[in-house]
Amino acid sequence: MPFPRARYVFSMIRLVAFDADDTLWHNEPLFTGTQERFRRLLARYQDAAVIDQRLYETQTANLEHYGYGIKAFTLSMVETAIELTEGRIPGAEIEEILTMGREMLLAPVELLDGVGETIAALEGRYSLMVVTKGDLLDQESKVARSGLGEHFDHVEVVSRKDVASYARVLAAHAVAPPEFVMVGNSLRSDVLPVLELGAAAVHVPYPVTWAHEAVAPERLEGLSFATADSLRELPGLLEAMERA
Amino acid sequence: MPFPRARYVFSMIRLVAFDADDTLWHNEPLFTGTQERFRRLLARYQDAAVIDQRLYETQTANLEHYGYGIKAFTLSMVETAIELTEGRIPGAEIEEILTMGREMLLAPVELLDGVGETIAALEGRYSLMVVTKGDLLDQESKVARSGLGEHFDHVEVVSRKDVASYARVLAAHAVAPPEFVMVGNSLRSDVLPVLELGAAAVHVPYPVTWAHEAVAPERLEGLSFATADSLRELPGLLEAMERA
Repeated sequence: MPFPRARYVFSMIRLVAFDADDTLWHNEPLFTGTQERFRRLLARYQDAAVIDQRLYETQTANLEHYGYGIKAFTLSMVETAIELTEGRIPGAEIEEILTMGREMLLAPVELLDGVGETIAALEGRYSLMVVTKGDLLDQESKVARSGLGEHFDHVEVVSRKDVASYARVLAAHAVAPPEFVMVGNSLRSDVLPVLELGAAAVHVPYPVTWAHEAVAPERLEGLSFATADSLRELPGLLEAMERA
Repeated sequence: MPFPRARYVFSMIRLVAFDADDTLWHNEPLFTGTQERFRRLLARYQDAAVIDQRLYETQTANLEHYGYGIKAFTLSMVETAIELTEGRIPGAEIEEILTMGREMLLAPVELLDGVGETIAALEGRYSLMVVTKGDLLDQESKVARSGLGEHFDHVEVVSRKDVASYARVLAAHAVAPPEFVMVGNSLRSDVLPVLELGAAAVHVPYPVTWAHEAVAPERLEGLSFATADSLRELPGLLEAMERA
């Protein structure tokens, strides 16, 4: 009889952390919708494909200094618009880009299906936390507007989601990796660094993923993590992980 | 004999937190210098006083949604430039504003006089923390570039410095207000909310203060906090506070 491969070696989960954007509430459609408006604004100067490509390149080049979030995205749109039009874009259209960014910051927070009930059901059984990247103020504001704030023991906005960031968060809360489960829609940000740290992860895919968060399938080979279609499956999954 | 008025009732200080910008390193000159460049850029459209006034109004109006920091400042400069020129500003000049913002993010971190020695001297005697507002990534990057990072037990970037923010930071680190001392250059952000919480504050004025951080003298009446000309005075001040 082959030795059974342990999928999870976690007997006691103390802290369950959730990514926010596209895990608790819809976010990527806000970016794709804005990018669609941006494309229309620049349509008389450039093809859609060129606009998308150049905006992506600008965003990626700016990540190191701007970080993630709507302010960075707005600045990258302004930069891309000026470059693609060789400076011919009029001020009124730049102003329209600023308005798009401000509207993103004010957009209503729409919870994903089942999120409210699931978070409420888990409260009291585990410490609950949000770990998200992006603009500090914007993320805090979304947690507040989501109505979920009171269910979470902590909200951590980090500048990037790498192994060191997760290690810092766990250390700050005196939680060991085997006691920690991260739940999120991004393999790159919510799953891979968490597994590398020796903690567990539950991947809840969202229909749309920003290209920058994409992960080559080879990087997942041999890794063990749970996948759920909806956050509704989480309470059962966590119980199964504790029994395993 | 009159009953002596206790200036400090702190017998044991456990956590000493420092504001970052204009407390540990020079920052305001970076903003005033950039604003000077901004003024020159727009000189052919508007008077300096009008430019300054309008930029300040835009920044203040945007604070609620953009928060503090260089990305917010850059977006406010772009917005102000378009409005003041009624959209006539050419793309190349908007691009120059983006460049100014990027240069601010890359500017060298210059420590204030005596900071390095003072922080090193306090290490081991108290837990040391940075509590700062602004862009998350930018502030983390400055702590790293300052060379001071290893002396601090924690770095907290907060979206605003009010009583609730300080209360959250203290709770997260299980420190009671009487065990906490905040050190910073801003009466509004580093002193008043900290005193309101029942903790102590040391005000180390910086030669320049952003108008938004200014405090009416009446608000200081009856309040007790220490003032130092330089961070070099801090070890002695802290000892005196513990003896009091």
